[in-house]
Amino acid sequence: MKNVAVILSGCGVFDGTEIHESVFTLLELEKNGANYQCFAPDIAQAQVVNHLTGEVAEGECRNVLVESARIVRGNVKDVRQAKPEDFDALIFPGGFGAAKNLSDFADNGADCTVNKDVLSFAKAMANSDKPIGFICISPVMIPLVYGSGVKGTIGNDLETAKAIEAMGGVHIECPVTEFVIDEARKVVSTPAYMLAGNMLEAYSGIQKLVAKVLELA
Amino acid sequence: MKNVAVILSGCGVFDGTEIHESVFTLLELEKNGANYQCFAPDIAQAQVVNHLTGEVAEGECRNVLVESARIVRGNVKDVRQAKPEDFDALIFPGGFGAAKNLSDFADNGADCTVNKDVLSFAKAMANSDKPIGFICISPVMIPLVYGSGVKGTIGNDLETAKAIEAMGGVHIECPVTEFVIDEARKVVSTPAYMLAGNMLEAYSGIQKLVAKVLELA
Repeated sequence: MKNVAVILSGCGVFDGTEIHESVFTLLELEKNGANYQCFAPDIAQAQVVNHLTGEVAEGECRNVLVESARIVRGNVKDVRQAKPEDFDALIFPGGFGAAKNLSDFADNGADCTVNKDVLSFAKAMANSDKPIGFICISPVMIPLVYGSGVKGTIGNDLETAKAIEAMGGVHIECPVTEFVIDEARKVVSTPAYMLAGNMLEAYSGIQKLVAKVLELA
Repeated sequence: MKNVAVILSGCGVFDGTEIHESVFTLLELEKNGANYQCFAPDIAQAQVVNHLTGEVAEGECRNVLVESARIVRGNVKDVRQAKPEDFDALIFPGGFGAAKNLSDFADNGADCTVNKDVLSFAKAMANSDKPIGFICISPVMIPLVYGSGVKGTIGNDLETAKAIEAMGGVHIECPVTEFVIDEARKVVSTPAYMLAGNMLEAYSGIQKLVAKVLELA
């Protein structure tokens, strides 16, 4: 049975993990007979966004680990507890949390950095030749985990693709129902809600990504 | 194309909507070619629960409609805007929000009441002979919507089943992968996380419930 770590970034597309993407990821892991454990950094969210209005809730403060727990009925751990030797693969669902909490891409674009505990775990997985799946906006972290020359996709958003290229990544356009793979580094990515117009579209790409990540694990 | 209203109750199993149950419901509606619109009451949550520790976050206050928006990427409306003539069916996902925000069953058991706007919409749907699906703990509202003698299930939790019977409901035991139907009133219910040990179990019952609700619509 394969063990997969999933890194969450809060709860809700505009300031945390994209909920559908994370649920589809976990559902597909179960369907494929894999074990999973979710992790998140124990840090304050960069922002709290009112998801009804789309506006920042000024003065409100939430914790990434605590909010991530909502997606998994409490079953989430501090990412500092994640040990690479316990896992065969890693998956990052998307949502702005990947660009605001796991990294600061939303603010700093190509000059962004990744949370040090998240980066250290992801690098250890990569260095052990274990596959990592990146969904939606989370592929902006690929160049920071792997260095330059690694293939990935966020769909076809020109500005984001340019930023990935500026960071040394190789961006490949990809439709929502497919994924891009860097065979040498075992990196799999799919656009999901960077392109999806509905749940079925996001789900179809994520289904394929999870199957491929497990195949490589 | 059938139009289905889905009533949410916040975002997170311990103080709002059970996230997996709502995502599975919406996914199945899409798979079956139905349209949906989510609604929630524009009221303060009864509680905010820290989903990591399971403890009440004293002094914290969140709004049911605003938090529900997280599950549907912003696409949720005040339940007072829900018009029965616009919909062919109604579904309630579960989570403690159904027992704390949509009703006060968690506090008052068999003496509970249902939020007046939720109740008025649900009664109007019932009176128009339109099917309603109740998932997880939400079937505690069945006797208050329909009056006595209507069949439903929350699985096999004795205390909850007793409370439903005390309110005039007819509780039928049911495994997590199945549903109970009251044919005369077009009421469909499934236990989901009242019994489910994993996502696949909850998903299987919800798949069948959604298909049956659409068949009756």
